Amino acid sequence: MSLTIGVDIGGTKVAAGVVDENGTILATALRETPAEDPAQTVDVITDVIAELRESHEVEAVGLGAAGFIDAQRSTVVFAPNLAWRNLALRATVEKNCGLPVVVENDANAAAWGESRFGAARDVDSMVMLTIGTGVGGGVVLDGELFRGQNGMAAEIGHLTVVPDGRRCGCGNRGCWERYASGRALVGEARDIADLSPTYGARMLELGDGEPEGITGPEVTQAAVEGDPAALEAFALIATWLGRGMASLAAVLDPSMFVLGGGVSEAGEVLRAPAEKEFLSRLTASAFREAPAIALAQLGGEAGIVGAADLVRRR
Amino acid sequence: MSLTIGVDIGGTKVAAGVVDENGTILATALRETPAEDPAQTVDVITDVIAELRESHEVEAVGLGAAGFIDAQRSTVVFAPNLAWRNLALRATVEKNCGLPVVVENDANAAAWGESRFGAARDVDSMVMLTIGTGVGGGVVLDGELFRGQNGMAAEIGHLTVVPDGRRCGCGNRGCWERYASGRALVGEARDIADLSPTYGARMLELGDGEPEGITGPEVTQAAVEGDPAALEAFALIATWLGRGMASLAAVLDPSMFVLGGGVSEAGEVLRAPAEKEFLSRLTASAFREAPAIALAQLGGEAGIVGAADLVRRR
Amino acid sequence: MSLTIGVDIGGTKVAAGVVDENGTILATALRETPAEDPAQTVDVITDVIAELRESHEVEAVGLGAAGFIDAQRSTVVFAPNLAWRNLALRATVEKNCGLPVVVENDANAAAWGESRFGAARDVDSMVMLTIGTGVGGGVVLDGELFRGQNGMAAEIGHLTVVPDGRRCGCGNRGCWERYASGRALVGEARDIADLSPTYGARMLELGDGEPEGITGPEVTQAAVEGDPAALEAFALIATWLGRGMASLAAVLDPSMFVLGGGVSEAGEVLRAPAEKEFLSRLTASAFREAPAIALAQLGGEAGIVGAADLVRRR
Amino acid sequence: MSLTIGVDIGGTKVAAGVVDENGTILATALRETPAEDPAQTVDVITDVIAELRESHEVEAVGLGAAGFIDAQRSTVVFAPNLAWRNLALRATVEKNCGLPVVVENDANAAAWGESRFGAARDVDSMVMLTIGTGVGGGVVLDGELFRGQNGMAAEIGHLTVVPDGRRCGCGNRGCWERYASGRALVGEARDIADLSPTYGARMLELGDGEPEGITGPEVTQAAVEGDPAALEAFALIATWLGRGMASLAAVLDPSMFVLGGGVSEAGEVLRAPAEKEFLSRLTASAFREAPAIALAQLGGEAGIVGAADLVRRR
Repeated sequence: MSLTIGVDIGGTKVAAGVVDENGTILATALRETPAEDPAQTVDVITDVIAELRESHEVEAVGLGAAGFIDAQRSTVVFAPNLAWRNLALRATVEKNCGLPVVVENDANAAAWGESRFGAARDVDSMVMLTIGTGVGGGVVLDGELFRGQNGMAAEIGHLTVVPDGRRCGCGNRGCWERYASGRALVGEARDIADLSPTYGARMLELGDGEPEGITGPEVTQAAVEGDPAALEAFALIATWLGRGMASLAAVLDPSMFVLGGGVSEAGEVLRAPAEKEFLSRLTASAFREAPAIALAQLGGEAGIVGAADLVRRR
Repeated sequence: MSLTIGVDIGGTKVAAGVVDENGTILATALRETPAEDPAQTVDVITDVIAELRESHEVEAVGLGAAGFIDAQRSTVVFAPNLAWRNLALRATVEKNCGLPVVVENDANAAAWGESRFGAARDVDSMVMLTIGTGVGGGVVLDGELFRGQNGMAAEIGHLTVVPDGRRCGCGNRGCWERYASGRALVGEARDIADLSPTYGARMLELGDGEPEGITGPEVTQAAVEGDPAALEAFALIATWLGRGMASLAAVLDPSMFVLGGGVSEAGEVLRAPAEKEFLSRLTASAFREAPAIALAQLGGEAGIVGAADLVRRR
Repeated sequence: MSLTIGVDIGGTKVAAGVVDENGTILATALRETPAEDPAQTVDVITDVIAELRESHEVEAVGLGAAGFIDAQRSTVVFAPNLAWRNLALRATVEKNCGLPVVVENDANAAAWGESRFGAARDVDSMVMLTIGTGVGGGVVLDGELFRGQNGMAAEIGHLTVVPDGRRCGCGNRGCWERYASGRALVGEARDIADLSPTYGARMLELGDGEPEGITGPEVTQAAVEGDPAALEAFALIATWLGRGMASLAAVLDPSMFVLGGGVSEAGEVLRAPAEKEFLSRLTASAFREAPAIALAQLGGEAGIVGAADLVRRR
Repeated sequence: MSLTIGVDIGGTKVAAGVVDENGTILATALRETPAEDPAQTVDVITDVIAELRESHEVEAVGLGAAGFIDAQRSTVVFAPNLAWRNLALRATVEKNCGLPVVVENDANAAAWGESRFGAARDVDSMVMLTIGTGVGGGVVLDGELFRGQNGMAAEIGHLTVVPDGRRCGCGNRGCWERYASGRALVGEARDIADLSPTYGARMLELGDGEPEGITGPEVTQAAVEGDPAALEAFALIATWLGRGMASLAAVLDPSMFVLGGGVSEAGEVLRAPAEKEFLSRLTASAFREAPAIALAQLGGEAGIVGAADLVRRR
């Protein structure tokens, strides 16, 4: 059976795996990212590929990185966490390891992984939301990853949902990811703890007594325990998720939305209120089959599995 | 050269044409729509096809109608202005005229017309905005009309752009078409005339002295003359157009937006401020080629031409 | 018992009455306003005073007019419906009729009437909302009408409640009166009728089948009958009323709000949802006695009664 | 010349001073607040009064505390930072020190101080904004402090300025103080530093490299140096200040707004853009004298001076 390697290149670690045609990971390798040294990051990628090839014969390599990748899936135009600008990553890694390579945006790779082997394996069209610090996205239409003219489609975190709303790193205000991301969740939780400390007592306790001590895992833990304040914070971002998905459904009419990324590990605490809001907002719901709202199934490995599979379709 | 018929079925008239492979209309026929009698509307469609076939030999018929069309392009699920519900229009018209038929949403048909023979004929992916009473849409991706799983993609008028904003006929509040349509333009113009009659004097004059007398053509005429109040009304909806297009660009990364529909006949008065706002809002604009913002070129015939061409691809 | 005259000078009629110390109207006179002729309007006021003095001996005259009155209660700075600008109304009328005169803003006069003899006669501080086409206001603090430094206090209709919201005649956007007035009520009702005609059928019927045929009385009638669409329109503006009153309570901490003006004639259909929203938004409600929300009791005569009483305090 | 003591009771310190009839502070005393022990805080107040009386003969004591004070200026209904609830502070301190005492809200006391001896000493009506973590307020009308029916007037920080906006400690969302306070300033500055670290580099540097290290003084320092990012953060909250003041001017028509509190120490960097926005939003500005927007002059001593003077009017 043919094997490929998928590499998920993040700001803190480079995670790679040997993946078979069924999306099963046979071996993995992990390195820290020398994020301050862009050239050295390429060396680490080369190393990790070499390490995996010692034990497995592979035919190609798929790379996934957070940032803008050109439409030819060759060049990293801009990767903020890796200090890469206009890096010909495909050519460089092909030269270093002598195998065919494609480069893909990490959220696209994760979407493809879930689409082929995860929550959306039975549908042809889906939108994946990678809900972490921001909201990344990937779109699969008619069984193909949708990239757009510049390779920049599915930047769904930058839908404007509030006119003149919260500042976004992209330069606009009011972007969806400023209301429906982990950052928004933590911001709301800290506001609760700071402004209503009695109500936010459980989250404060988990955060060592300081609003700044509250991060995503604390809010998730409190919510899963049933803490009303943490549940309210989740309900708020879930409401925004539902609204944004309703807008996306109006444009894309997909069969399924998949909720992935670290925040989605909270599970039903996030999914259920998001689905409720989504269904209440879905336009023309009487005349259509509503898209399903599903939790991701591949967890943090979606990017590796997706990148490894995408290179089969080079 | 092979000929087909395109039929544009509106709430007030049924317009049909014989179209060649280059998108040229060789003959047309026009009837009033008996909108109060759904069955009779089918008869009118049949008649108009028969009339055109007397002078031209055609091989197939494409129908465009405002409403929800199923993904098989056969059934009109819901057409509010025609009182049609779950009408098997394709089968019925095929039986009546003995030719192959496909049914398409009217905004999709117009988008296809502009994509093949109009403003977007040189690009592979485009979004058309049909700016009339509402905002309809059509999306072409990689050279194909994009329909979605339920045939309901590109309902772009129902992007939510203002939380808890203006009531929309779809049941939500804050839909894009409530801020960027002809209805919004006229509403703003009437507000100006009503609340600031001195400022709105020229529009009032064109509207026979009453705010209610101001409709789209009056606002357009005043704007083209250079009336500041009418230009402000146009600038307002153009701003909303630009914002919504920036959201769509984040999702779809198209090569072009085409502004069509009656409001777009105002031309640069609408296009220029929409483009300006769009460019100021386009996410990651430093790393991409910005989509062009173009005016439609086929005018009211886009639907006929598009429907006629779509049936060639049945 | 001492008698005075109160005159309510509106854009369509001049209404005057002889009023005793208990706020009882003993005689009235009514004229059409020659609004197109500012000087002639002064003559009509003089006439109506003379007419009432034929049967009653009075000691002074209070005038109420829609517009900006200076802090000395002498000059009409600007009265949009009467085409008056910087008119020395007090001196002119005093000269014409030989009696002491004061001039007051009409909403202030109505507030004073309700404060002395109407819904707020048992409290020392109150805010009156005159809910008509716009939202006018009057504020009584510690038993005195509150005028501000320019005589322009209590322009409460121009609280900004929605950033960049609906255009207002005052030049801003998002003013309270654009969301909580009769104009807003009728706008919402027409939107319902236009966008959801089945839902808005009863109001359409009362409006002779056209959205433009629906005015305040039609919405009120339908709401009082129990029509869900009309009740929804009332609930919407009542919600905005409640929100704005909560803001005013944060600033003024009054004992009572009085809802007057034509829209308030709908009664509980307006008052009850306004009160509910108000109480849910009142800041620090656990530590205060909530202001009462009352309907006005003097109806259209509040202005006459108030103006007549204010001149006793000249 | 008659002397009184003013005491400013804060969550971290108790500051007191002997003040003469001209508002001059002759002697001061300072203690830490034992905020965790409500009863002990009363002892500290008693001590500090006794200390000042050793060197000066005083006739009365005015106390200012953050919280809700009843209309009789006797009882602290709720003081969140001091853990006081329904504390009969006036009677207790009178018993302890044998002098007449009045209690006032701290923002009211500061407003009175500025009104009598500071920026607003030449006007009869003013609104003071105490811009710290939140936005407190005090209103002077016709030369008298305005308290409202429950003693809770001038809670201006809880004007709603954004429907469904940011969570507030008061239980609502969208309160003015969530957009125009020091907390809002720091939040925006941290967002800049976190989302656009290059742009926010100077503030990050001052904050020891972490967004959380940025507090009010860092933003102020950077702004005064001319850092564009810090100036943008100030401009944003100044814009919100201007909008809210325009709403307050519509209601209160004062002669002056005084900007006080820690954030106002930034000076023109805050005042100038606030005034610009205010003037652009002031309703009916053509027909009125616009209120002045002034910076406070008494700094942190306004509360002591105001409390000391208020007790002269007991």
